[in-house]
Amino acid sequence: MHKLTLSQRAYLAGFLDGDGSIYVRLKPNSTYRYNFQVAPYISFFQARKGREHLVSIQGLLGGGYLRDREDGIVEFVVGDGETISQFLKAVKPHLRLKRKQAELMLRILEMHRSIKTAQDFLRMARVVDEFSQLNYSKKRKITSDKVRKALQAKGY
Amino acid sequence: MHKLTLSQRAYLAGFLDGDGSIYVRLKPNSTYRYNFQVAPYISFFQARKGREHLVSIQGLLGGGYLRDREDGIVEFVVGDGETISQFLKAVKPHLRLKRKQAELMLRILEMHRSIKTAQDFLRMARVVDEFSQLNYSKKRKITSDKVRKALQAKGY
Repeated sequence: MHKLTLSQRAYLAGFLDGDGSIYVRLKPNSTYRYNFQVAPYISFFQARKGREHLVSIQGLLGGGYLRDREDGIVEFVVGDGETISQFLKAVKPHLRLKRKQAELMLRILEMHRSIKTAQDFLRMARVVDEFSQLNYSKKRKITSDKVRKALQAKGY
Repeated sequence: MHKLTLSQRAYLAGFLDGDGSIYVRLKPNSTYRYNFQVAPYISFFQARKGREHLVSIQGLLGGGYLRDREDGIVEFVVGDGETISQFLKAVKPHLRLKRKQAELMLRILEMHRSIKTAQDFLRMARVVDEFSQLNYSKKRKITSDKVRKALQAKGY
């Protein structure tokens, strides 16, 4: 990520509060050691005419990808933990609506980096639970309880 | 309006780009000299949990009102030309998506302040047309052409 100026950081915090989403999911994935993958995201949605703006934000962040949907909406999605982590650290002091999400996401990413045991993984999964409660997610299927049962079944 | 710091101005620009709307309408109103009222607006929409944030923005702007809708959405609407004008001047250098709307709105508000004749009013109404094209408004009913015909009918 480029070095961001104060006004860029404050602007991006406002834009994230207004238009962005921060979320994280646990995805079943048997190729991963603990059978679940942690998938963190930051995303923005704009009408086609806002595409250039998303491209310039992509430039500032130095990561993420754009997706042009058939309904005319452009999505900008960042799914790389390191990029998300640097971005959130830069904007966090200016965030108002999404500061708690940012803090929990940073905690999850940090826990994720230092996982050594199934217990570590489960502890992180519980923080993902906390995160989901913050976002009032109702569609959520994979909770830390599912992770715990899956880990038990695998003999951890 | 309070004096805003650099980071407040940049944040508010980002939040306006992400969550806000800038629009202006001509409303038929026979109590007005030229039979139409110019109604400028800036608005923000948040879920109920974002209410406090809108209250704090209201505090920074020193104007506007909140409306708690029955569907759980909170609207913050500023309809006062002077407050809108000061706010847009403060955030304009940081705006990315809505800078043109901000510039046209400032021009409309300035023209509005110095209207002396029906011709002045009509000229301003034409800039409102330009503004609507920028916002891709399809529902729009009152164009400068309607204003022109109404003014003619009144003998201006």
